[in-house]
Amino acid sequence: MITNYAALGRAFLHGETSPSAVMEHYLDTIARREPGVRAFVCLDPGRARAQAAAADLRWRNGAPLSPLDGMPIGVKDIIETADFPTGQGSPMWRGSETRRDAATVQALREAGAIVVGKTTTTEFASTELLEPTRNPHDPNRTPGGSSSGSAAACGAGMLPFALASQVVGSTTRPASFNGCIGYKPTTGGLNRGGSFDYLSQSCVGMLGMALEDVWLATRAIASRIGGDPGQVGVLGPDSLPAPMRPGRLALLDTDGMADATPGARAALAARLDALRAAGVEIADRRTCPLIEGLEQSLAGALDLAWEVLVWEMRWPLNTFSWRDDAAEGLSAAMKFRLAQGEAMTQADYARALSRRETARARLRDVACAYDAVITLGAPGAAPASFVNTGNPAFNVPASLLGAPALSLPVLEDDGMPLGLQIFSGHGSDARLFGHAHWLLSGDAAAG
Amino acid sequence: MITNYAALGRAFLHGETSPSAVMEHYLDTIARREPGVRAFVCLDPGRARAQAAAADLRWRNGAPLSPLDGMPIGVKDIIETADFPTGQGSPMWRGSETRRDAATVQALREAGAIVVGKTTTTEFASTELLEPTRNPHDPNRTPGGSSSGSAAACGAGMLPFALASQVVGSTTRPASFNGCIGYKPTTGGLNRGGSFDYLSQSCVGMLGMALEDVWLATRAIASRIGGDPGQVGVLGPDSLPAPMRPGRLALLDTDGMADATPGARAALAARLDALRAAGVEIADRRTCPLIEGLEQSLAGALDLAWEVLVWEMRWPLNTFSWRDDAAEGLSAAMKFRLAQGEAMTQADYARALSRRETARARLRDVACAYDAVITLGAPGAAPASFVNTGNPAFNVPASLLGAPALSLPVLEDDGMPLGLQIFSGHGSDARLFGHAHWLLSGDAAAG
Repeated sequence: MITNYAALGRAFLHGETSPSAVMEHYLDTIARREPGVRAFVCLDPGRARAQAAAADLRWRNGAPLSPLDGMPIGVKDIIETADFPTGQGSPMWRGSETRRDAATVQALREAGAIVVGKTTTTEFASTELLEPTRNPHDPNRTPGGSSSGSAAACGAGMLPFALASQVVGSTTRPASFNGCIGYKPTTGGLNRGGSFDYLSQSCVGMLGMALEDVWLATRAIASRIGGDPGQVGVLGPDSLPAPMRPGRLALLDTDGMADATPGARAALAARLDALRAAGVEIADRRTCPLIEGLEQSLAGALDLAWEVLVWEMRWPLNTFSWRDDAAEGLSAAMKFRLAQGEAMTQADYARALSRRETARARLRDVACAYDAVITLGAPGAAPASFVNTGNPAFNVPASLLGAPALSLPVLEDDGMPLGLQIFSGHGSDARLFGHAHWLLSGDAAAG
Repeated sequence: MITNYAALGRAFLHGETSPSAVMEHYLDTIARREPGVRAFVCLDPGRARAQAAAADLRWRNGAPLSPLDGMPIGVKDIIETADFPTGQGSPMWRGSETRRDAATVQALREAGAIVVGKTTTTEFASTELLEPTRNPHDPNRTPGGSSSGSAAACGAGMLPFALASQVVGSTTRPASFNGCIGYKPTTGGLNRGGSFDYLSQSCVGMLGMALEDVWLATRAIASRIGGDPGQVGVLGPDSLPAPMRPGRLALLDTDGMADATPGARAALAARLDALRAAGVEIADRRTCPLIEGLEQSLAGALDLAWEVLVWEMRWPLNTFSWRDDAAEGLSAAMKFRLAQGEAMTQADYARALSRRETARARLRDVACAYDAVITLGAPGAAPASFVNTGNPAFNVPASLLGAPALSLPVLEDDGMPLGLQIFSGHGSDARLFGHAHWLLSGDAAAG
């Protein structure tokens, strides 16, 4: 299985393989796995092949557009694409043509990436998975959400990389469940233009099988279109930051830890032991009041996140009354969220933002004293359920805090993948990749 | 002529007149003036009449949706409407149906406002006016831009109020040229969801004939959907803030003053004398180093604004290469802006943002010491030209600074309207309306 597209560059240049051969590998895997996993809303293998052939020529001529030239990618179906409709996971928007590429999609295309298809998402990237996507590691389990299809496609080996988004747990949770790397940048760190997630905590998410591919895609976007307007965007080297052993990590033991399975706790404990053995200091709330302060500010984080969110979701949900199909087109959960938002006042929203700002101040304290926060990517393996997309308790802190976060597929629970999560202070994305690089290397596990 | 819709409420309740009668007045004016002014991209008088009849009933039953129930409004054609297409001032998007209302439109509809039509804008709310809109006070002059149709419609008496936007000078400049009140809130102070102006300085703009209508529309939006996600939005009383005499005003004498016409300078000087006579202290850079510091930070403000803007405009302009009609569909000016943006790096953008932040820090200094900054709304009357939409030198400071600004139609130049502009620190919108209320009252002019 191909797990690092960018590493193929030398082989492409030497004619040992080609983007077309790689594309065929992924299209074969899609043909084999997609009927069971159902990660895609739409696909265009013919167009993907034609674009791969063009990439072949560029590599053969020694002039690839970037190290990612020819890389097959998927795009979460809340992100606009000029050549595929954007359905937002809602029957009300299925098949909608917006005739533009999102900023991320345009930037990745300029780097040579090839959009193979659109991937499933929960309704408006929120909680309801109306699509039949399954976890590729066990069809009786949820793939997680809201970036369900992007994570399932990568986890099934159908794609090396896919665009996602995260406002609560939509990238790092499915990354954990499907055995992918999940990256949520500093909020606003990657330009969200053309993504239907007009929410203050939301950000572009990335799912992939290789840390290098994820970093190169990050820089491909940030160098071309920066962050959200008014933000410079993720800065850092052109190539993957070198492995960097963290000196001190802050173990976060928030609301979620009570929900963690015995297997997940054991896997985390073993990993922490290995890190200590490798010379990394691990502090927690018992040894450090800064960590205690951060944890206290995160008590009730999920409720607080939803308070912020339901106000911000009033629009555009409140405009759908215009549509004839709104009565049946909105899920009961979404109607409930809308009602919650409509019951709020501007003053309620002000109070919620103020509490969130307090938590962010506590993160700044911790980020000054520690290289990163470490915790689980999810409370355990993907649940065997399709009623919801899994517990986001471990994902909401980084979302609420606006922190860059990575979920790394290095743990296991119940024979399924489980993510190890690290996050850090605003703007420290490149350093976080350096630490992740080290954590994925032999040195970190050897301890 | 009706100049204050909200003031009609008592007459509506007493059955002396009705929203339908008011609507007929405006539709008559539209029938008379629109062929010469051409402020509208599209209009639906039939639907407006039907909605006015529904407002009649609510007032008659003593249960209006708000003081603005039944008010005819126009919507700048970069702002989405579920019942009219949104053309963005570009032949490439003419007739595009997005099937949603923008957050502002939805909020105003909830308050009972009636969208009569979409108003012309320059291409993508930038510099090129591809529509034939004329200044209602003199058909040989530009209406200004980019909110050309919104300002011309109000100035011609075809509407009491219209939605606009401003990123450089798009609201306060046409307000000055067309004899309207123009309000640009603190950047992010009114939710921009569903407006095609994904730029860090851009904000919802308002044009109207009565300060009260503009304030009520502001609160109708802010109380329902707040500011841009993550911002509380404009706060303040439900009704127009009472007249408040400013104690100290800072006269801003920036780049633009050199371009001001003799008539404009004389009008401003006379107004300042009247204010001094009314007991208002007027300071300037010669008497106050804080003002000098702000002016220094604003040297080259227009160039700096464009540096920020062309980077932020790369997307979505760079995605239009997908469109068959892009070669002819983009103006030469817009292609030039795109080329400028594509020549920039993320580091260039970072430097521009840093300079903008410095200017904003200088505004904070001035806002602590003065009630407001006072200056012209434009260097003079609308120019007799259709080559461009007028000099934005007096408008760019508040845009760059993210400051709330009001242009008040109380001056004249060359027999044409000219605006008096005041702006102040972030979040002081309600106080600014109090000062504007006083400036528009007899006391301020009597001095």
